[in-house]
Amino acid sequence: MTTASLKQRRDQALGAGAALFYDQPLNIVRGDGVSLFDADGRRYVDMYNNVPCVGHAHPRVVEAMARQQATLNVHSRYLHEGIVAFAERLVALHGPQIESVVFSCSGTEANENALRLARFATGRRGILCTDATYHGNNDLVGALTGLGGREPAHPDIRAIPFPQTFRPLVPGLSGAALTDAYLERLDGAIASLEASGAGVAALIVCSIFANEGLPDVPPGFMARAAERVRAAGGLVIADEVQAGYGRTGRWWGYDGTGFTPDIVVTGKPMGAGLPLAATAASRDLVETFRRRTRYFNTFASSPLQAAVGMAVLDVIEDEGLIDNAGRVGTMLKTALAGRRSRWDAIGDVRGTGLFIGLEMVDAAGAPDPDLASDVANRLKDRCFLTSNAGAFRNVVKIRPPLVFSQDDAAAFLEAFDAVVADLHG
Amino acid sequence: MTTASLKQRRDQALGAGAALFYDQPLNIVRGDGVSLFDADGRRYVDMYNNVPCVGHAHPRVVEAMARQQATLNVHSRYLHEGIVAFAERLVALHGPQIESVVFSCSGTEANENALRLARFATGRRGILCTDATYHGNNDLVGALTGLGGREPAHPDIRAIPFPQTFRPLVPGLSGAALTDAYLERLDGAIASLEASGAGVAALIVCSIFANEGLPDVPPGFMARAAERVRAAGGLVIADEVQAGYGRTGRWWGYDGTGFTPDIVVTGKPMGAGLPLAATAASRDLVETFRRRTRYFNTFASSPLQAAVGMAVLDVIEDEGLIDNAGRVGTMLKTALAGRRSRWDAIGDVRGTGLFIGLEMVDAAGAPDPDLASDVANRLKDRCFLTSNAGAFRNVVKIRPPLVFSQDDAAAFLEAFDAVVADLHG
Repeated sequence: MTTASLKQRRDQALGAGAALFYDQPLNIVRGDGVSLFDADGRRYVDMYNNVPCVGHAHPRVVEAMARQQATLNVHSRYLHEGIVAFAERLVALHGPQIESVVFSCSGTEANENALRLARFATGRRGILCTDATYHGNNDLVGALTGLGGREPAHPDIRAIPFPQTFRPLVPGLSGAALTDAYLERLDGAIASLEASGAGVAALIVCSIFANEGLPDVPPGFMARAAERVRAAGGLVIADEVQAGYGRTGRWWGYDGTGFTPDIVVTGKPMGAGLPLAATAASRDLVETFRRRTRYFNTFASSPLQAAVGMAVLDVIEDEGLIDNAGRVGTMLKTALAGRRSRWDAIGDVRGTGLFIGLEMVDAAGAPDPDLASDVANRLKDRCFLTSNAGAFRNVVKIRPPLVFSQDDAAAFLEAFDAVVADLHG
Repeated sequence: MTTASLKQRRDQALGAGAALFYDQPLNIVRGDGVSLFDADGRRYVDMYNNVPCVGHAHPRVVEAMARQQATLNVHSRYLHEGIVAFAERLVALHGPQIESVVFSCSGTEANENALRLARFATGRRGILCTDATYHGNNDLVGALTGLGGREPAHPDIRAIPFPQTFRPLVPGLSGAALTDAYLERLDGAIASLEASGAGVAALIVCSIFANEGLPDVPPGFMARAAERVRAAGGLVIADEVQAGYGRTGRWWGYDGTGFTPDIVVTGKPMGAGLPLAATAASRDLVETFRRRTRYFNTFASSPLQAAVGMAVLDVIEDEGLIDNAGRVGTMLKTALAGRRSRWDAIGDVRGTGLFIGLEMVDAAGAPDPDLASDVANRLKDRCFLTSNAGAFRNVVKIRPPLVFSQDDAAAFLEAFDAVVADLHG
């Protein structure tokens, strides 16, 4: 089967418009560690996928999945020790304010549960988010997507400009003054929600503003933003679907940012490809949600989710993947930052741990999404898989499985330099 | 670990209020075919679970799952033949109006996608459902739940009385006159949506009205209801999450009801416990949805969903499970109907294939939910697992894995007779 004829069958079976990466899509048939192989046996280094955080086809995950499916996989209305132990272990990875967990099957479901939990707990409806965010694909959570420059699609939602130092809200401002400028916009959004009668139920942010393009945040912004939201009676939700699980070289994206969330949402890497997500909060908050919704999710809180979720945590700990993410990520970011002097089109290099963004700009310093896409396609042709993201889609997104090594990074830098030479000479 | 101390740990880790079956919850640790085993090694016959439709821990499902997870499990923005072939196979199980599939991870997600698809395609917002339905647990789909006797929770939703012959809408009416009475209510709901400006986007029903209590439907109701919805410019959504996949002794719940859906939603049994659901429709409808939403679901359309979904279909076909459901279900229903003459509390015996409901009533013929719950608890004590459901929670719900055999049915009838003797003497 050629790639073209498979694409044609796919357009019929899934409908044209189901997203594919790259100008010439890949037909991937096998994975192993950081490697993905296409149907012709060509090997690619995966520098995009955070779901298989422990590496593709990790044998301990396969073994846990197979053993549990062969033993028991059933819904959660019978007692089962596995899911209780998994919830206890997750909770212990946070501070004392996080006590109980609502499991679900996708980041969308878990973020929606977080928003509903906040609404029930506060008795208010208003949601604050950023203007270049993405928290999921359904009706409620999808309404938070892409509010930048437009009136809110929903009367209970207010989007604030995402905090950043690279293209500051007020040109020329930096440091504490810039922080104040962003907080002023937050204050305005809070006042607007209060004036509308919705009030403030929650602020929801990705702890590292991944979809916004991994901005460097003005000093102290998140801690002070959280204070203001709480003063207005709202809760603070950390969407750790991309930020968490060791990605930044720490367990959680919020670690070291100076704010402590009331509700934590996790997803993508939790199940190494098994649909698994969680909304964690105080027991009181979770019980309010359960009382109000009688929430039941057929496939969630299952023995299978528990067994696979435990295996992923075991591998992260036993293989020292969080240290690896910090160490290799720092080396790679430093090396890429060194390329800025050689190629003006690299406007900025940002990120933490194994989540790095290269801001591509044109000669005038404006966002250059076409160049970012071109770089990703050329890296793909050299067998390194990245993507582009950010508020302007001009950020080359580097987010490999956490098993990505120093040697992988060195090989990537060689390919990157070759792409730079092709484009820049 | 005692059951009581596990329950206490669970209340902390998941929050009290996470639903459990039975007055004394079970601690289930292992499954095999129709059997579930508790921590003390006691064997129960599973007569509730439709997710493990091919039986608990089926070796072909385990093997397919393990092999695919060890080979490749990644998101759908690379081409992969597996998910295309699975979509093609699903589509071929319906009539020619069903051409393309949007995969997701839960019935909730799949039903929401169906509703959004209908809204985008029609340009209208109004949703028609029944007054005792359940289509999922999130913000949009959850708004359809339990509208009976209350004003719609949402201005774009209208609930009609679910069609039934046992407690007819107009006492004394039957046959075509009763059908007309229900259609009149549907006409009123359509007119109300049109008057509100919302218009009719869709009618969504479980094809066998499972949550309503498996009613016998007045003759021709669904075919004529579908005509009226289409005349108003709306689409007809069959929620086959419970009704489909051979449960009724046919592939689909809508088979033989005289209506053909525009959109079909499947879920629970598709993945034998792997989160897997689908929204299927014409290619044109699906492409409208994809264009409008750019829908992407991290865990859906994966090689793992494809491999496990294929294995489940293989087992259903190779083991003749649909015929089995029809044969054993008919035998069991007939036998249970025969008990009505011995025990007045069995007001009615309904259902098709291996989905049977016993309507429990008090001396005056009114719904008796306490008795239904008592019967389910007593059957559990005799090691047969059922539950109670229906608009009044007074229907004992019998819905075993499709591998449930004649011998299993005979054993159950013995236990059932013992429970009747305990309660009725």
